[in-house]
Amino acid sequence: MMVPLWTALCWPQALPPRSLAAREVPVPETVSPVLREAIAPAWNPPVVPRNADEWRAFARQRDEVRAKQLPELRERLGVRVEETKIAGVRVYRVRPASIAPVNRERLLVHLHGGAYVFSGGETAAYEAILMAGHGGIEVLSVDYRMPPDAPFPAALDDAVAVWREVIRKNPAAKTGMFGTSAGGGLTLATVLKLKELKVPLPGALMAGTPWSDLTKTGDTYFTNEMIDNVLGTNDGMLDGAARLYANGRDLKDPLLSPVYGDLSGFPPALLLSGTRDLFLSNTVRTHRKLRDGGGTADLVVYEGQSHGQYMIVNRAPESAEAFRETARFFDKHLKR
Amino acid sequence: MMVPLWTALCWPQALPPRSLAAREVPVPETVSPVLREAIAPAWNPPVVPRNADEWRAFARQRDEVRAKQLPELRERLGVRVEETKIAGVRVYRVRPASIAPVNRERLLVHLHGGAYVFSGGETAAYEAILMAGHGGIEVLSVDYRMPPDAPFPAALDDAVAVWREVIRKNPAAKTGMFGTSAGGGLTLATVLKLKELKVPLPGALMAGTPWSDLTKTGDTYFTNEMIDNVLGTNDGMLDGAARLYANGRDLKDPLLSPVYGDLSGFPPALLLSGTRDLFLSNTVRTHRKLRDGGGTADLVVYEGQSHGQYMIVNRAPESAEAFRETARFFDKHLKR
Repeated sequence: MMVPLWTALCWPQALPPRSLAAREVPVPETVSPVLREAIAPAWNPPVVPRNADEWRAFARQRDEVRAKQLPELRERLGVRVEETKIAGVRVYRVRPASIAPVNRERLLVHLHGGAYVFSGGETAAYEAILMAGHGGIEVLSVDYRMPPDAPFPAALDDAVAVWREVIRKNPAAKTGMFGTSAGGGLTLATVLKLKELKVPLPGALMAGTPWSDLTKTGDTYFTNEMIDNVLGTNDGMLDGAARLYANGRDLKDPLLSPVYGDLSGFPPALLLSGTRDLFLSNTVRTHRKLRDGGGTADLVVYEGQSHGQYMIVNRAPESAEAFRETARFFDKHLKR
Repeated sequence: MMVPLWTALCWPQALPPRSLAAREVPVPETVSPVLREAIAPAWNPPVVPRNADEWRAFARQRDEVRAKQLPELRERLGVRVEETKIAGVRVYRVRPASIAPVNRERLLVHLHGGAYVFSGGETAAYEAILMAGHGGIEVLSVDYRMPPDAPFPAALDDAVAVWREVIRKNPAAKTGMFGTSAGGGLTLATVLKLKELKVPLPGALMAGTPWSDLTKTGDTYFTNEMIDNVLGTNDGMLDGAARLYANGRDLKDPLLSPVYGDLSGFPPALLLSGTRDLFLSNTVRTHRKLRDGGGTADLVVYEGQSHGQYMIVNRAPESAEAFRETARFFDKHLKR
């Protein structure tokens, strides 16, 4: 049977979308009460900034809210944070009260999330505090430059510069790298860049619900739209932040959307997501690519969680579980 | 602050459900064209049988449809199927044209899916043909008894009886066990039962999108309702089949819903699911329980797939991928 060329070319678009009726979704009973409270509310859509000043104001406001959580979090997890500079980049050295003996010569480099726009300054270290506290390991959190003032490749350049300097003293095989959301995407992009530069790679990495595709491509961008109450949808804020960061570059450039990169030769990687996560597809597509590349890649999907709630809902037992899980993964794969 | 006791007791129920508006979900571009065609259609609700005769007629009809696929599938994958009996139970011995040298002393025991009601007779071996063909390993598929004639614990008894007999000749450590859907749930329940009986356990297992909770408990029973176009919803057919199988027993009995069992001491387990799978929560809750039990448990979630589509859509490259993935897992964990 002859099929016209245009049919073959256009065929994927020719399948119509599925219509879903309006419905109610209950709060799951299969998570802790603290997490349940975070899952219950509907997504609260932000007002999307329209220019550089509005992005700055928006980021400042978000960061101020998170900064208020930091003293209690440091106190509760018994963690000290010290600001310093490495390779000219501001970093936060995050030390738990007690470092596990096996971790005394190990270090984790942390790249924070926040859509490449938020979570700068002292809030960069928020997730690093959770990791250091639950994992009993020292973490170095990179307060990389961000748009609107410093778009791509500033964040990547800062991550690479800090890494190069860190491994002058710390063996790369004993040093891990991790981050959630944009931090997960940047972790993957940094390893791609280090491969290209033939710089020694981290001994292991964790990419939590990585923003590995900056375009609205992947199943759960649609199926979990509005079910995820952290991100809600890609339209608006996320799309705007992606374009602000990319600064005119193709969003499918592997250094922006690492799922399109060559992930062969990557170190062992742990990927985290949740059943309601808008980035579940970003996570499982990256997982598949890493396995296809021949690497060790472990996937954990948390029941009921939207994007990054293991990090955001820091009082939930599921948060401690995720960072202990990550610590076990690093313990297994980082050189002793 | 004083909180009345009734508030504390009733509080989880007090969180209101989330309302989702009607919407359209596109067919993902991130899967193969063959899979895309299977993802596109809306779920086609079956007429739920109301009595034993209707269940029998329904099962016969479903099995006839699948039986028609078997000759082509055997031919395409170069697999021979031979009916025999072990411990009085009908089984199908499924042999690929070429068995990988490392697999010559290995064997997989297969427990088929079909909601504990369908996929009996020769269709029991459907998934076993895929596994044997893609994995280059011999598979023994158990045509266990099913309701309405033989409800719980007939299926479990048959699985245990066959296993006991198999390991008289084949070392348990060189023998794996696997199944999808009800077959995944039954695989887990059988291992629970073998633990209880102190019979040697399989060397490794694969539980694909396991029906590990026969009650409508777990997040994706709701979030993926109607998004999954294989199962659609738990209401009606699935719930009816669960009750038919349980035959009056508590659906949360761990031998019916193994996610409620003690999964410590389990062999290494591979768990498969999909982003649209109604049983994604069944899968990730089981994954968590296995990790909490200290075991090795690997999770793979396939992009865009509803319940068991890696098995159902047998012409998709994603199907070959899933069974090759499973073969690699067994190769890694079964004794040589």
